[in-house]
Amino acid sequence: MSVFGLPDRAYELQRAVRAFVDGTVIPAEDGTLARNVDRLDEVCSELRRKARTAGVFAPDLWEQWKGSRLGWQVRHLVLEEVGRSPLGAGALHCAPPDMPNIDLLAAVANPEQRVRYLQPLINAEVRSCFAMTEPTPGAGSDPSMLKTTARLAGRRWVINGHKWFISGAIGARFAIVIATTDSGPTMFIVESTNPGWRIQRSLRSLDSHQLGGHAEIRIVDCIVDDECRLGETGKALVYAQMRLEPARLAHCMRMVGRAQRVTELAQQYLRRRQSFGSPLAELQNVQTLVADSHIDLYAARLMTWHVAAKMDAGESVKQDSAIAKVFVSEAVCRIADRAVQLAGASGTLVDEPIGQFFQEVRPFRIYDGASEVHRAAIGRRVLRSSHELADLDPLLMQG
Amino acid sequence: MSVFGLPDRAYELQRAVRAFVDGTVIPAEDGTLARNVDRLDEVCSELRRKARTAGVFAPDLWEQWKGSRLGWQVRHLVLEEVGRSPLGAGALHCAPPDMPNIDLLAAVANPEQRVRYLQPLINAEVRSCFAMTEPTPGAGSDPSMLKTTARLAGRRWVINGHKWFISGAIGARFAIVIATTDSGPTMFIVESTNPGWRIQRSLRSLDSHQLGGHAEIRIVDCIVDDECRLGETGKALVYAQMRLEPARLAHCMRMVGRAQRVTELAQQYLRRRQSFGSPLAELQNVQTLVADSHIDLYAARLMTWHVAAKMDAGESVKQDSAIAKVFVSEAVCRIADRAVQLAGASGTLVDEPIGQFFQEVRPFRIYDGASEVHRAAIGRRVLRSSHELADLDPLLMQG
Amino acid sequence: MSVFGLPDRAYELQRAVRAFVDGTVIPAEDGTLARNVDRLDEVCSELRRKARTAGVFAPDLWEQWKGSRLGWQVRHLVLEEVGRSPLGAGALHCAPPDMPNIDLLAAVANPEQRVRYLQPLINAEVRSCFAMTEPTPGAGSDPSMLKTTARLAGRRWVINGHKWFISGAIGARFAIVIATTDSGPTMFIVESTNPGWRIQRSLRSLDSHQLGGHAEIRIVDCIVDDECRLGETGKALVYAQMRLEPARLAHCMRMVGRAQRVTELAQQYLRRRQSFGSPLAELQNVQTLVADSHIDLYAARLMTWHVAAKMDAGESVKQDSAIAKVFVSEAVCRIADRAVQLAGASGTLVDEPIGQFFQEVRPFRIYDGASEVHRAAIGRRVLRSSHELADLDPLLMQG
Amino acid sequence: MSVFGLPDRAYELQRAVRAFVDGTVIPAEDGTLARNVDRLDEVCSELRRKARTAGVFAPDLWEQWKGSRLGWQVRHLVLEEVGRSPLGAGALHCAPPDMPNIDLLAAVANPEQRVRYLQPLINAEVRSCFAMTEPTPGAGSDPSMLKTTARLAGRRWVINGHKWFISGAIGARFAIVIATTDSGPTMFIVESTNPGWRIQRSLRSLDSHQLGGHAEIRIVDCIVDDECRLGETGKALVYAQMRLEPARLAHCMRMVGRAQRVTELAQQYLRRRQSFGSPLAELQNVQTLVADSHIDLYAARLMTWHVAAKMDAGESVKQDSAIAKVFVSEAVCRIADRAVQLAGASGTLVDEPIGQFFQEVRPFRIYDGASEVHRAAIGRRVLRSSHELADLDPLLMQG
Repeated sequence: MSVFGLPDRAYELQRAVRAFVDGTVIPAEDGTLARNVDRLDEVCSELRRKARTAGVFAPDLWEQWKGSRLGWQVRHLVLEEVGRSPLGAGALHCAPPDMPNIDLLAAVANPEQRVRYLQPLINAEVRSCFAMTEPTPGAGSDPSMLKTTARLAGRRWVINGHKWFISGAIGARFAIVIATTDSGPTMFIVESTNPGWRIQRSLRSLDSHQLGGHAEIRIVDCIVDDECRLGETGKALVYAQMRLEPARLAHCMRMVGRAQRVTELAQQYLRRRQSFGSPLAELQNVQTLVADSHIDLYAARLMTWHVAAKMDAGESVKQDSAIAKVFVSEAVCRIADRAVQLAGASGTLVDEPIGQFFQEVRPFRIYDGASEVHRAAIGRRVLRSSHELADLDPLLMQG
Repeated sequence: MSVFGLPDRAYELQRAVRAFVDGTVIPAEDGTLARNVDRLDEVCSELRRKARTAGVFAPDLWEQWKGSRLGWQVRHLVLEEVGRSPLGAGALHCAPPDMPNIDLLAAVANPEQRVRYLQPLINAEVRSCFAMTEPTPGAGSDPSMLKTTARLAGRRWVINGHKWFISGAIGARFAIVIATTDSGPTMFIVESTNPGWRIQRSLRSLDSHQLGGHAEIRIVDCIVDDECRLGETGKALVYAQMRLEPARLAHCMRMVGRAQRVTELAQQYLRRRQSFGSPLAELQNVQTLVADSHIDLYAARLMTWHVAAKMDAGESVKQDSAIAKVFVSEAVCRIADRAVQLAGASGTLVDEPIGQFFQEVRPFRIYDGASEVHRAAIGRRVLRSSHELADLDPLLMQG
Repeated sequence: MSVFGLPDRAYELQRAVRAFVDGTVIPAEDGTLARNVDRLDEVCSELRRKARTAGVFAPDLWEQWKGSRLGWQVRHLVLEEVGRSPLGAGALHCAPPDMPNIDLLAAVANPEQRVRYLQPLINAEVRSCFAMTEPTPGAGSDPSMLKTTARLAGRRWVINGHKWFISGAIGARFAIVIATTDSGPTMFIVESTNPGWRIQRSLRSLDSHQLGGHAEIRIVDCIVDDECRLGETGKALVYAQMRLEPARLAHCMRMVGRAQRVTELAQQYLRRRQSFGSPLAELQNVQTLVADSHIDLYAARLMTWHVAAKMDAGESVKQDSAIAKVFVSEAVCRIADRAVQLAGASGTLVDEPIGQFFQEVRPFRIYDGASEVHRAAIGRRVLRSSHELADLDPLLMQG
Repeated sequence: MSVFGLPDRAYELQRAVRAFVDGTVIPAEDGTLARNVDRLDEVCSELRRKARTAGVFAPDLWEQWKGSRLGWQVRHLVLEEVGRSPLGAGALHCAPPDMPNIDLLAAVANPEQRVRYLQPLINAEVRSCFAMTEPTPGAGSDPSMLKTTARLAGRRWVINGHKWFISGAIGARFAIVIATTDSGPTMFIVESTNPGWRIQRSLRSLDSHQLGGHAEIRIVDCIVDDECRLGETGKALVYAQMRLEPARLAHCMRMVGRAQRVTELAQQYLRRRQSFGSPLAELQNVQTLVADSHIDLYAARLMTWHVAAKMDAGESVKQDSAIAKVFVSEAVCRIADRAVQLAGASGTLVDEPIGQFFQEVRPFRIYDGASEVHRAAIGRRVLRSSHELADLDPLLMQG
């Protein structure tokens, strides 16, 4: 048992996931999948079948740790391993938006919705998406600017709006849509066969390897029964927040995994390569870049673990998870950038893991709250509190 | 006449180039050209015809300023405008590798070579490439590791080697190849129809919009006459250095142009967009990012101008141009990164100018000398000099 | 004539100043003068006598270049040399607050005030101070918060207020005080013998080597004749702004001089010192720190020169000088920090030039406008302009 | 019990220390003590008496947790509280060099030495110092350059050498001196009454508030009995390394405490102060600086805790403690710098806690291994390991 207090079987699980990722997922990597939505879906479906056989299908893994108060700490071990490959989360069925959608439906869906939407989603029989973000002048970082509306007409709702960057939309069976009603922002489940749900285009984003891509959607006189309302009217932003914290923590875990991998790949390159009469690995400037990435990895992991441990303990992580999101998203971008630099020309190839991660990681400083928004909020929370230090534990960031 | 001492007609020229870029080049932009080598060639050919008509064909422009001791300062004005579009340098025929190859051939080629290679290249009737870089364990940052060989067999040379990241190779009429002979590294002109010159693959690099792409080349028993030797045997590294300084300065100029453009695009976005109850343009965190990009642009331009002015004055720019290369390449990467952040989700679209520049600019910190290599060299030059300050002019970096 | 277009005699002057600073000023340095207001005054008085004899007394130097449109560019050469020593500006009589006060009085004072205050100040017969800054809740970064008042009682004004960080106050013959009147903020000349002018304490600031220290002042029922009003009522902030831009540019010049010197001192140390089997000068991490300081020096000098050249050309430097202030103040702090690191333990000695500069330079990021205030203003100016680029000269920062 | 697994009584202890520091130590602070070696000694002696009475005398505290496998984690809680005041560690008798000297003597001293040196040191009846560092060309960062020699003459050693930056030397009863013998570097206990031990001068360092100051020492024909040899001959560097890891971890703990305090002081200032029409606390640039300090504090604490927990678990912390040292020393410098900036002019006062910490913290990036030395070593350890990841625990930095 390490200083983190996790039992041996957690590490056994981690080893199993690592073995599957190394032996099955990484060999299936192919740079051209980056923005090929159809092929990516096929490849990941096949990998999911193998993951199930290998006993590393994520929903099954989470099931085992339910109620153990180690849930997020174990997810941490798994998600970091999974994150080593851009195909990993799809392969083990713990990729967004499905994974946070499962958590959300598990918390909010009614019994009929659980049968119709949650269970097939857990089983990876279908995919889903989460439709919140809107183009200007709608809701970007600021959800209060929501322009999509839902109007009650008898027992049915008529939804109209414009969404974009809806990850996973292409091929999804259903979407969780946020729209404003008379009672405030409300969530609805919209099936993709609904004629009012129209995928306008697939957006080519730096953030590639997304199952179902990133789509721009028009919602036009989209009629849904009140049974498709998810949770209470007017509660959508509360639910979205509930979904967001774990979703961004999971991102941190996966991204640290990839950051570790590209650092290892760069190191392998450096051990082989000579320049100006020395192995690159013997140059101080190279050692310094490697050291900086390991310093970033160390801090990123400890923060991620700490937020996970607090979530497991049922403590509030509002401030801590915002800090972790800012730090980790920036740290993994720095690490990706250093890996490119360390690998030299070969680091600039867009279809190789390093060049590919350099692109893919960049949007993480924007989605789930841009760094600038989080920093202002973190500082404001500190400055508006009436006292400096509520809790004496110096390890529990207060201020 | 501004503080930089350039005559009015230099600024008139700049305005003409700006008008052509705005009116003709930018409207022809198309994100999908980024790595489409064939289409890019066609589009740029067409634009070059228009540039000639508009009187902004670069070789003609340079001709006018020859001998005026303002050559590089005028190039600066032109290249920054040209750089605003990823198609600009191709459109005005001042893109690498042709532009520095023209400078090199003008300095080194013999009369026959001038007729056969230089003149068609100036006229944009053909394209060329420069084949120096080799994959591990060959010559990357360190040219002394050259593995390509040229062996004299009678009056002919037999060249064998492996090159990669040879920009512009696809569709080039000829290559300037560096190979080691008994007398040291030597340059040869190899025509692409030579059966020993084999394009193995087109490399997909972050650095897109390269006319002729980036190729991996095998040179296999490639036979060339001694007439194809460029300059003296054993002098290739001297010539390469001669070519490199202006080439990297020209890169700085073009890249600052693009950095200016993406900053403007981000600013236009910020002026339109609201968030959390304020226009984004009124948020201090946004203003600060904008300010930082303008600070970087200011310094980058002044350095670029200063190196150009010293080159025009015939002064050595060894240290200054190394400093400018490091600073400018890093500054434009920071600016690209800020533009992505400022433009939010729309900044992450890979085919739009901001997301596209974010990728394209990254390799600049590696090619023409990685920042780490330059920093060590800059520091070493300072520390090995026996005195602190040779020249009292505080504006002439000594130390 | 260099690329900067300065005539030879400017560089001759620079050499003369350098010789005086090296031969006379630097030998008089003594770390214990840092916060010893009385001794510092004595030492500088003595040095001023020698400077006059050597023909490098600054007011005389400026006189020669009046009307030549090279005024600020020549000051640049002189002030950078002078800045090499913490005693330099005092020794040549071009230290704040006297130097900018002279500029201000030359522009605004009436004939009687010129005789009584300006001329003795030019001659260094007296010292002066500038009393604007107030403690909370008065005017710090934001001059509109001015709490000091001046009430007209017949032909006389009664001033009351609280000022602090009034540099040069101890031993000054007179102060230029800003106080609010019915017509708005107004400047007054208050003689230090006025019983209403009370020096409450000398503040010990990181910014040491200030002639006349930094004082906290109480102004209590301080009665002055209307003849002591400087310029028009209600115009104090306009005059203060007029004084501020040159004052902060002069700071940039002097601080770059010191930054150059501590970099040279660190380099001398590195050339002598061995560690882990190599001369420190041969370690890449050391070379990189040295390179970074030279990159910063290069950019800092070019910006400072450019603002000076624009001022000489009568152009507005509002945006450029704000950018230069932010960049230079931060660059010299980074350079000071690197010099400490490069000099190791000996760099931490508070009375030696490196450790001393590390402290002294820090407040420069706060005074004359904190970096955060300037950045917001720089960004705001860009974002509020209706067009992107007024002037096509890429070298003239617009945006 | 928090996620860190510490029992309640650890937090009770922390609260008691906090109460003593707040109620007794902080009220005794006085900026003029910074470099007043004699007064500082008196003030701390008096505080130590009170600490004993209050039951927070550190040696007594450590005693209680011996053998509990929580030793370093409890020290973490205590040392962070203690570190809030520059007088704290002296007041509770857990300041260097005595605290690490106690640890060293406890591990290495023979029974006679324990009685004669260790026990009085634990009781705070005497002070001690550790004499390793030498001026150029001796041992600075690189202990292999040791120039001090010890020559055996019969049963006695004759030591000659030159040491500097010997913290705590003034007023120390004895020194632990490292000198080279025929068998390699060896430790000796030298009493300060030995005529061969000569304090040459007290060095004024940025690192103030050091009990016993920082001295330059000449060791001249200093004769000591072989009974004064500490441990085995030739083992000094092993012992020094043993002493160094805990010593630098303890520094991290104390420095984070001070960083927290100056951040709180800056926050109190920001809540009170207005500028440009808003409370400073409402400005995004201010919130961002505050957020950055909290991000740094969060990471710094987690790293410090993690190294402490691994030491308690008996695991090797070679790489982790080097990473923590680099990160924490740089983070606390950034935090100090931000506190100065946030507090504006009042942050530059050298005798106030913020301005004082800004100076004091700077040398931490140099002593206990300069960042550059550590980074090269961290990178080298990674690059020389034959495999990427020995242990699957992603939380245990491997590479």
